[in-house]
Amino acid sequence: MNNPIPYQDPIELVRSLIRNVPDWPKPGVMFRDITPLLQDPRAFRALIDIFVYRHMRHKLDVVVGIDARGFIFGSALAYALGVGFVPVRKQGKLPYKTVSAAYTLEYGDAVVEVHQDAVKPGQRVLLVDDLVATGGTMLAAVKLLQQLGSNVVEAAAIVDLPALGGSSLIAKTDTPFFSVCTF
Amino acid sequence: MNNPIPYQDPIELVRSLIRNVPDWPKPGVMFRDITPLLQDPRAFRALIDIFVYRHMRHKLDVVVGIDARGFIFGSALAYALGVGFVPVRKQGKLPYKTVSAAYTLEYGDAVVEVHQDAVKPGQRVLLVDDLVATGGTMLAAVKLLQQLGSNVVEAAAIVDLPALGGSSLIAKTDTPFFSVCTF
Repeated sequence: MNNPIPYQDPIELVRSLIRNVPDWPKPGVMFRDITPLLQDPRAFRALIDIFVYRHMRHKLDVVVGIDARGFIFGSALAYALGVGFVPVRKQGKLPYKTVSAAYTLEYGDAVVEVHQDAVKPGQRVLLVDDLVATGGTMLAAVKLLQQLGSNVVEAAAIVDLPALGGSSLIAKTDTPFFSVCTF
Repeated sequence: MNNPIPYQDPIELVRSLIRNVPDWPKPGVMFRDITPLLQDPRAFRALIDIFVYRHMRHKLDVVVGIDARGFIFGSALAYALGVGFVPVRKQGKLPYKTVSAAYTLEYGDAVVEVHQDAVKPGQRVLLVDDLVATGGTMLAAVKLLQQLGSNVVEAAAIVDLPALGGSSLIAKTDTPFFSVCTF
Protein backbone atom coordinates (compact mmCIF):
# COMPACT_ATOMS: atom_id res chain seq x y z
CA MET A 1 0.00 0.00 0.00
CA ASN A 2 1.20 3.50 -0.76
CA ASN A 3 1.66 5.92 2.11
CA PRO A 4 -1.16 8.40 2.55
CA ILE A 5 -0.41 11.87 1.17
CA PRO A 6 -0.65 14.51 3.93
CA TYR A 7 -2.56 17.76 3.40
CA GLN A 8 -0.35 20.80 3.01
CA ASP A 9 -1.79 24.24 3.60
CA PRO A 10 -0.96 26.33 0.48
CA ILE A 11 -0.40 29.59 2.38
CA GLU A 12 1.99 27.86 4.81
CA LEU A 13 3.83 26.31 1.86
CA VAL A 14 4.20 29.70 0.17
CA ARG A 15 5.38 31.39 3.38
CA SER A 16 7.89 28.63 4.17
CA LEU A 17 9.74 29.19 0.87
CA ILE A 18 10.35 32.92 1.26
CA ARG A 19 14.03 33.32 2.07
CA ASN A 20 15.33 35.89 4.53
CA VAL A 21 18.46 37.65 3.27
CA PRO A 22 19.92 39.88 6.03
CA ASP A 23 21.58 43.23 5.24
CA TRP A 24 20.38 43.46 1.64
CA PRO A 25 20.22 45.79 -0.25
CA LYS A 26 21.89 47.61 2.68
CA PRO A 27 22.92 46.96 6.32
CA GLY A 28 20.01 46.55 8.73
CA VAL A 29 17.46 45.53 6.07
CA MET A 30 16.03 41.99 6.07
CA PHE A 31 15.14 41.24 2.44
CA ARG A 32 12.30 38.78 1.73
CA ASP A 33 13.42 36.81 -1.32
CA ILE A 34 10.66 35.06 -3.30
CA THR A 35 12.98 33.20 -5.71
CA PRO A 36 12.95 29.89 -3.72
CA LEU A 37 9.14 30.02 -3.84
CA LEU A 38 9.12 30.60 -7.62
CA GLN A 39 11.53 27.79 -8.41
CA ASP A 40 9.52 25.20 -6.44
CA PRO A 41 6.82 23.89 -8.84
CA ARG A 42 4.34 23.06 -6.11
CA ALA A 43 4.72 26.30 -4.15
CA PHE A 44 4.62 28.41 -7.33
CA ARG A 45 1.40 26.70 -8.38
CA ALA A 46 -0.05 27.07 -4.86
CA LEU A 47 0.71 30.80 -4.93
CA ILE A 48 -0.99 31.39 -8.28
CA ASP A 49 -3.96 29.19 -7.42
CA ILE A 50 -4.60 31.07 -4.15
CA PHE A 51 -5.32 34.07 -6.38
CA VAL A 52 -7.22 32.10 -9.03
CA TYR A 53 -9.55 30.76 -6.33
CA ARG A 54 -9.89 34.24 -4.82
CA HIS A 55 -10.67 36.04 -8.10
CA MET A 56 -12.26 33.64 -10.57
CA ARG A 57 -15.79 34.83 -9.72
CA HIS A 58 -14.90 38.52 -9.96
CA LYS A 59 -15.01 38.92 -13.73
CA LEU A 60 -11.57 40.49 -14.02
CA ASP A 61 -10.52 41.87 -17.40
CA VAL A 62 -6.80 42.38 -16.77
CA VAL A 63 -4.04 41.56 -14.31
CA VAL A 64 -1.54 44.42 -14.01
CA GLY A 65 1.93 43.58 -12.65
CA ILE A 66 4.53 46.04 -11.37
CA ASP A 67 8.12 46.03 -12.77
CA ALA A 68 9.85 43.55 -12.38
CA ARG A 69 9.01 40.89 -9.76
CA GLY A 70 5.30 41.71 -10.12
CA PHE A 71 5.57 40.50 -13.72
CA ILE A 72 6.49 36.99 -12.57
CA PHE A 73 3.52 36.60 -10.32
CA GLY A 74 1.05 38.64 -12.40
CA SER A 75 1.52 37.04 -15.80
CA ALA A 76 1.09 33.45 -14.54
CA LEU A 77 -2.06 34.61 -12.78
CA ALA A 78 -3.38 36.31 -15.94
CA TYR A 79 -2.80 33.09 -17.89
CA ALA A 80 -4.55 30.99 -15.24
CA LEU A 81 -7.54 33.37 -15.12
CA GLY A 82 -7.76 33.61 -18.92
CA VAL A 83 -7.36 37.41 -18.96
CA GLY A 84 -4.78 39.81 -20.40
CA PHE A 85 -1.59 41.01 -18.70
CA VAL A 86 -0.39 44.62 -18.52
CA PRO A 87 3.01 45.77 -17.22
CA VAL A 88 3.47 48.92 -15.14
CA ARG A 89 7.09 49.90 -15.69
CA LYS A 90 9.79 52.17 -14.37
CA GLN A 91 10.29 55.37 -16.36
CA GLY A 92 11.61 55.07 -19.92
CA LYS A 93 10.99 51.35 -20.42
CA LEU A 94 7.70 51.44 -22.37
CA PRO A 95 7.98 52.26 -26.10
CA TYR A 96 4.49 53.65 -26.86
CA LYS A 97 2.47 56.61 -25.50
CA THR A 98 2.33 56.44 -21.69
CA VAL A 99 0.77 58.04 -18.65
CA SER A 100 3.07 58.40 -15.64
CA ALA A 101 2.94 59.05 -11.90
CA ALA A 102 5.74 60.14 -9.57
CA TYR A 103 6.13 58.88 -6.02
CA THR A 104 8.58 59.44 -3.20
CA LEU A 105 11.26 56.95 -2.19
CA GLU A 106 13.56 57.15 0.81
CA TYR A 107 16.03 59.11 -1.30
CA GLY A 108 14.42 61.21 -4.05
CA ASP A 109 11.56 60.42 -6.39
CA ALA A 110 10.73 57.68 -8.85
CA VAL A 111 8.23 57.42 -11.70
CA VAL A 112 6.06 54.56 -12.93
CA GLU A 113 4.41 54.42 -16.35
CA VAL A 114 1.78 52.45 -18.20
CA HIS A 115 0.77 52.53 -21.87
CA GLN A 116 -2.22 54.80 -22.54
CA ASP A 117 -4.08 51.99 -24.31
CA ALA A 118 -3.19 49.30 -21.74
CA VAL A 119 -6.57 49.35 -19.98
CA LYS A 120 -9.95 50.63 -21.14
CA PRO A 121 -12.42 52.72 -19.13
CA GLY A 122 -14.56 50.48 -16.94
CA GLN A 123 -12.27 47.45 -17.15
CA ARG A 124 -11.93 45.48 -13.93
CA VAL A 125 -8.27 45.29 -12.95
CA LEU A 126 -6.31 43.32 -10.37
CA LEU A 127 -3.01 45.04 -9.52
CA VAL A 128 -0.19 42.85 -8.16
CA ASP A 129 3.37 43.15 -6.91
CA ASP A 130 5.59 40.76 -4.99
CA LEU A 131 5.89 42.87 -1.83
CA VAL A 132 4.48 46.01 -0.23
CA ALA A 133 6.72 48.02 2.09
CA THR A 134 6.01 51.78 2.18
CA GLY A 135 3.45 51.33 -0.60
CA GLY A 136 4.63 54.21 -2.78
CA THR A 137 4.93 52.22 -5.99
CA MET A 138 1.60 50.47 -5.54
CA LEU A 139 -0.28 53.68 -4.72
CA ALA A 140 1.24 55.36 -7.80
CA ALA A 141 0.18 52.41 -9.95
CA VAL A 142 -3.39 52.53 -8.60
CA LYS A 143 -3.53 56.24 -9.47
CA LEU A 144 -2.36 55.55 -13.05
CA LEU A 145 -4.94 52.83 -13.60
CA GLN A 146 -7.74 54.99 -12.21
CA GLN A 147 -6.55 57.89 -14.40
CA LEU A 148 -7.17 55.62 -17.42
CA GLY A 149 -10.70 54.99 -16.15
CA SER A 150 -10.29 51.40 -14.99
CA ASN A 151 -11.72 49.92 -11.81
CA VAL A 152 -8.97 48.57 -9.54
CA VAL A 153 -10.82 45.70 -7.86
CA GLU A 154 -7.91 44.92 -5.53
CA ALA A 155 -4.23 45.74 -4.99
CA ALA A 156 -2.47 42.55 -3.91
CA ALA A 157 0.98 41.32 -2.93
CA ILE A 158 2.57 38.04 -1.92
CA VAL A 159 4.28 39.66 1.08
CA ASP A 160 3.17 42.60 3.21
CA LEU A 161 5.52 44.33 5.65
CA PRO A 162 2.87 46.05 7.80
CA ALA A 163 5.44 47.79 10.04
CA LEU A 164 6.44 49.92 7.04
CA GLY A 165 2.90 51.25 6.68
CA GLY A 166 2.18 50.74 2.97
CA SER A 167 -0.74 48.38 3.30
CA SER A 168 -2.44 50.74 5.82
CA LEU A 169 -2.07 53.63 3.38
CA ILE A 170 -3.60 51.57 0.55
CA ALA A 171 -6.46 50.40 2.79
CA LYS A 172 -7.33 54.09 3.43
CA THR A 173 -8.05 54.57 -0.30
CA ASP A 174 -11.12 53.07 -1.99
CA THR A 175 -8.98 50.17 -3.30
CA PRO A 176 -8.98 47.03 -1.11
CA PHE A 177 -5.61 45.49 -0.24
CA PHE A 178 -4.76 41.79 0.11
CA SER A 179 -1.54 39.88 0.84
CA VAL A 180 -0.82 36.16 1.17
CA CYS A 181 1.49 36.57 4.16
CA THR A 182 3.07 39.19 6.41
CA PHE A 183 6.54 39.54 7.94
CA MET B 1 -28.44 29.34 -35.68
CA ASN B 2 -25.17 30.76 -34.38
CA ASN B 3 -22.53 31.77 -36.89
CA PRO B 4 -19.74 29.26 -37.32
CA ILE B 5 -16.52 30.19 -35.45
CA PRO B 6 -13.62 30.48 -37.90
CA TYR B 7 -10.26 28.83 -37.18
CA GLN B 8 -7.51 31.27 -36.25
CA ASP B 9 -3.90 30.23 -36.60
CA PRO B 10 -2.23 30.91 -33.19
CA ILE B 11 1.12 31.98 -34.65
CA GLU B 12 -0.60 34.45 -37.00
CA LEU B 13 -2.64 35.80 -34.08
CA VAL B 14 0.51 36.30 -31.99
CA ARG B 15 2.37 37.97 -34.85
CA SER B 16 -0.56 40.29 -35.70
CA LEU B 17 -0.52 41.80 -32.18
CA ILE B 18 3.15 42.80 -32.09
CA ARG B 19 3.22 46.58 -32.48
CA ASN B 20 5.87 48.38 -34.50
CA VAL B 21 7.15 51.51 -32.74
CA PRO B 22 9.47 53.49 -35.08
CA ASP B 23 12.52 55.35 -33.75
CA TRP B 24 12.50 53.78 -30.29
CA PRO B 25 14.64 53.65 -28.19
CA LYS B 26 16.55 55.78 -30.70
CA PRO B 27 16.19 57.15 -34.27
CA GLY B 28 16.32 54.49 -36.98
CA VAL B 29 15.32 51.58 -34.74
CA MET B 30 11.97 49.83 -35.28
CA PHE B 31 10.95 48.49 -31.85
CA ARG B 32 8.77 45.35 -31.71
CA ASP B 33 6.40 45.92 -28.80
CA ILE B 34 4.77 42.81 -27.31
CA THR B 35 2.43 44.66 -24.90
CA PRO B 36 -0.64 44.52 -27.24
CA LEU B 37 -0.11 40.76 -27.49
CA LEU B 38 0.09 40.37 -23.70
CA GLN B 39 -3.04 42.41 -22.99
CA ASP B 40 -5.18 40.39 -25.42
CA PRO B 41 -6.43 37.33 -23.47
CA ARG B 42 -6.72 35.10 -26.50
CA ALA B 43 -3.35 36.00 -28.05
CA PHE B 44 -1.57 35.75 -24.67
CA ARG B 45 -3.02 32.28 -24.15
CA ALA B 46 -2.15 31.27 -27.73
CA LEU B 47 1.45 32.38 -27.17
CA ILE B 48 1.88 30.39 -23.97
CA ASP B 49 0.12 27.34 -25.36
CA ILE B 50 2.37 27.24 -28.45
CA PHE B 51 5.19 26.58 -25.99
CA VAL B 52 3.18 24.21 -23.78
CA TYR B 53 2.37 22.09 -26.82
CA ARG B 54 6.00 22.25 -27.98
CA HIS B 55 7.54 21.27 -24.61
CA MET B 56 5.09 19.20 -22.57
CA ARG B 57 6.72 15.92 -23.64
CA HIS B 58 10.27 17.13 -22.91
CA LYS B 59 10.30 16.63 -19.13
CA LEU B 60 11.44 20.16 -18.34
CA ASP B 61 12.35 20.96 -14.74
CA VAL B 62 12.53 24.76 -14.93
CA VAL B 63 11.67 27.68 -17.18
CA VAL B 64 14.25 30.46 -16.92
CA GLY B 65 13.19 33.97 -18.00
CA ILE B 66 15.46 36.92 -18.74
CA ASP B 67 14.93 40.30 -16.99
CA ALA B 68 12.35 41.82 -17.46
CA ARG B 69 10.07 41.02 -20.43
CA GLY B 70 11.24 37.40 -20.37
CA PHE B 71 9.65 37.15 -16.91
CA ILE B 72 6.19 37.85 -18.34
CA PHE B 73 6.36 35.13 -20.93
CA GLY B 74 8.43 32.64 -18.87
CA SER B 75 6.43 32.58 -15.66
CA ALA B 76 3.07 31.95 -17.33
CA LEU B 77 4.73 29.14 -19.27
CA ALA B 78 6.23 27.64 -16.08
CA TYR B 79 2.79 27.69 -14.46
CA ALA B 80 1.17 26.05 -17.49
CA LEU B 81 3.85 23.34 -17.65
CA GLY B 82 3.73 22.73 -13.88
CA VAL B 83 7.45 23.48 -13.39
CA GLY B 84 9.40 26.10 -11.43
CA PHE B 85 10.42 29.55 -12.66
CA VAL B 86 13.89 31.11 -12.32
CA PRO B 87 14.78 34.74 -13.13
CA VAL B 88 18.07 35.72 -14.80
CA ARG B 89 18.58 39.34 -13.76
CA LYS B 90 20.67 42.37 -14.53
CA GLN B 91 23.58 42.95 -12.18
CA GLY B 92 22.79 43.85 -8.57
CA LYS B 93 19.12 42.81 -8.54
CA LEU B 94 19.38 39.35 -6.93
CA PRO B 95 19.79 39.30 -3.13
CA TYR B 96 21.45 35.91 -2.58
CA LYS B 97 24.73 34.34 -3.81
CA THR B 98 24.97 34.59 -7.60
CA VAL B 99 27.03 33.54 -10.58
CA SER B 100 27.43 36.18 -13.28
CA ALA B 101 28.46 36.54 -16.93
CA ALA B 102 29.47 39.67 -18.83
CA TYR B 103 28.53 40.34 -22.43
CA THR B 104 29.11 43.11 -24.92
CA LEU B 105 26.48 45.64 -25.94
CA GLU B 106 26.73 48.27 -28.64
CA TYR B 107 28.17 50.69 -26.09
CA GLY B 108 30.14 49.00 -23.29
CA ASP B 109 29.46 45.82 -21.36
CA ALA B 110 26.57 44.44 -19.32
CA VAL B 111 26.30 41.65 -16.77
CA VAL B 112 23.58 39.08 -16.09
CA GLU B 113 23.28 37.05 -12.89
CA VAL B 114 21.43 34.05 -11.54
CA HIS B 115 21.25 32.64 -8.01
CA GLN B 116 23.76 29.83 -7.40
CA ASP B 117 20.99 27.54 -6.14
CA ALA B 118 18.49 28.45 -8.88
CA VAL B 119 19.07 25.31 -10.96
CA LYS B 120 20.58 21.96 -10.00
CA PRO B 121 23.13 19.92 -12.02
CA GLY B 122 21.34 17.84 -14.64
CA GLN B 123 18.08 19.80 -14.54
CA ARG B 124 16.42 20.30 -17.91
CA VAL B 125 15.95 24.00 -18.54
CA LEU B 126 14.05 26.04 -21.12
CA LEU B 127 15.48 29.57 -21.43
CA VAL B 128 13.14 32.29 -22.74
CA ASP B 129 13.17 35.98 -23.58
CA ASP B 130 10.77 38.16 -25.53
CA LEU B 131 13.16 39.02 -28.38
CA VAL B 132 16.57 38.09 -29.74
CA ALA B 133 18.55 40.77 -31.60
CA THR B 134 22.35 40.44 -31.34
CA GLY B 135 21.90 37.55 -28.90
CA GLY B 136 24.42 38.76 -26.31
CA THR B 137 22.08 38.50 -23.32
CA MET B 138 20.76 35.09 -24.29
CA LEU B 139 24.22 33.63 -24.93
CA ALA B 140 25.41 34.95 -21.55
CA ALA B 141 22.37 33.38 -19.85
CA VAL B 142 23.02 30.00 -21.54
CA LYS B 143 26.61 30.14 -20.29
CA LEU B 144 25.46 30.83 -16.70
CA LEU B 145 22.99 27.95 -16.71
CA GLN B 146 25.57 25.54 -18.13
CA GLN B 147 28.09 26.75 -15.52
CA LEU B 148 25.60 25.59 -12.86
CA GLY B 149 25.49 22.17 -14.54
CA SER B 150 22.01 22.37 -16.02
CA ASN B 151 21.02 21.16 -19.48
CA VAL B 152 19.61 24.01 -21.61
CA VAL B 153 17.13 22.09 -23.78
CA GLU B 154 16.29 25.16 -25.88
CA ALA B 155 16.76 28.93 -25.95
CA ALA B 156 13.52 30.49 -27.19
CA ALA B 157 12.03 33.89 -27.96
CA ILE B 158 8.73 35.26 -29.17
CA VAL B 159 10.43 37.43 -31.78
CA ASP B 160 13.68 36.85 -33.67
CA LEU B 161 15.39 39.62 -35.65
CA PRO B 162 17.59 37.40 -37.85
CA ALA B 163 19.26 40.34 -39.62
CA LEU B 164 20.97 41.21 -36.32
CA GLY B 165 22.61 37.79 -36.16
CA GLY B 166 21.81 36.65 -32.61
CA SER B 167 19.83 33.55 -33.51
CA SER B 168 22.59 32.38 -35.89
CA LEU B 169 25.17 32.76 -33.13
CA ILE B 170 23.02 30.73 -30.72
CA ALA B 171 22.39 28.04 -33.36
CA LYS B 172 26.20 27.61 -33.66
CA THR B 173 26.36 26.53 -29.99
CA ASP B 174 25.04 23.15 -28.76
CA THR B 175 21.82 24.85 -27.60
CA PRO B 176 18.94 24.78 -30.12
CA PHE B 177 17.13 28.07 -30.81
CA PHE B 178 13.42 28.60 -31.49
CA SER B 179 11.26 31.66 -32.11
CA VAL B 180 7.54 32.06 -32.77
CA CYS B 181 8.00 34.74 -35.45
CA THR B 182 10.64 36.79 -37.22
CA PHE B 183 10.75 40.41 -38.36
